[in-house]
Amino acid sequence: MTSRLIEVRQKVLNKNDIAARALRERFRQAGVSVISLVSSPGSGKTAFLERVLTCMRTQHRVAALVGDLATDNDAVRLARSQAPVKQICTGTICHLDANMVEKAIEGWDLSDLDFMFIENVGNLVCPSSYDLGENARLVLLSVTEGEDKPLKYPSIFQGADAVIITKMDLAEAVEFCAQTAHRNIECVRPGIPVFELSTKTGAGVPEAVEWIVAVR
Amino acid sequence: MTSRLIEVRQKVLNKNDIAARALRERFRQAGVSVISLVSSPGSGKTAFLERVLTCMRTQHRVAALVGDLATDNDAVRLARSQAPVKQICTGTICHLDANMVEKAIEGWDLSDLDFMFIENVGNLVCPSSYDLGENARLVLLSVTEGEDKPLKYPSIFQGADAVIITKMDLAEAVEFCAQTAHRNIECVRPGIPVFELSTKTGAGVPEAVEWIVAVR
Repeated sequence: MTSRLIEVRQKVLNKNDIAARALRERFRQAGVSVISLVSSPGSGKTAFLERVLTCMRTQHRVAALVGDLATDNDAVRLARSQAPVKQICTGTICHLDANMVEKAIEGWDLSDLDFMFIENVGNLVCPSSYDLGENARLVLLSVTEGEDKPLKYPSIFQGADAVIITKMDLAEAVEFCAQTAHRNIECVRPGIPVFELSTKTGAGVPEAVEWIVAVR
Repeated sequence: MTSRLIEVRQKVLNKNDIAARALRERFRQAGVSVISLVSSPGSGKTAFLERVLTCMRTQHRVAALVGDLATDNDAVRLARSQAPVKQICTGTICHLDANMVEKAIEGWDLSDLDFMFIENVGNLVCPSSYDLGENARLVLLSVTEGEDKPLKYPSIFQGADAVIITKMDLAEAVEFCAQTAHRNIECVRPGIPVFELSTKTGAGVPEAVEWIVAVR
């Protein structure tokens, strides 16, 4: 039974890879850079994205898709940035896939955009297996989650292009050791850029935005 | 393809249900109460369990299984409580299942135990679908994750028997609104007991332990 499951999953993953490849080509032709965000629930993806959209939209044409099992809370929050935003509700599914992204952008003229963000469902495991056609993937880790998360959830860090350490304003209160966190990240994904920031104070946000803009 | 995946998954889930039923009967015959813990990565399952094991083991025979994709960090931490502890490494699998539990308890005489805890992989989605034969399931939610998580991840709350709100010592720093959190929990899972606690200060831990002891 298990071997059949694996075989079927493989086929489904391959189907996703094909859809992701088509999306990536479509994004390239439209000239839009696509950045996806992954993390645990509550690591601050939406707060980060709200800051980034607000900051970038004065100079760039930006939009966002946000995934959750239920509610459109995040889309409502992000809409305050004035950027176009669409919510993807996955129901019971623990990750976004390329088909969900394809369906969500129906009706959008991608050539009107410079950057599109995709906020995945909060989950530090499953999203790592699904290519969404993005140009870069950011993994967020909040200081309240502990320094050992890269060691315990290596695959999501190995598939990312940059790490954002969030909620640095709480670092002292939770006795977060940045040095240990950096060492653990380096251990599973050597050489990956790491940004420390606080969306509450705004510290570190410009450096992360600069990295995102350079993806283009 | 998708319909085949669903069909195969259904069979695998049914297989898990059968294994979980057998485990539950085994636990009953041995007279051990089994409590599982689910939450996001970094919500404080291990810190909570460390407190609970240390507190309970003066009067009860307790043990724990801890699941993670990789590392035995949690087992090492929990072993400080002097209770028997085993680590389950799931590799790339995003949840524990009944077979993993069955394999992990090989060699343990369950009739030597009053309580066994199972700490699931940090994931607020997938573990909700897998019965582990436990008598009660606790879902942990830390104040740093935000009050809306029950609305965004309803299934994990709907399948739980009690909610533990952790890191209450940080509530003020993150402007956590307990009233909103309680209302959201009540909305998706009416009548469920909710405990607020801080493993750092110890406040609220005795009330949660009292609830666990009463499961027996």
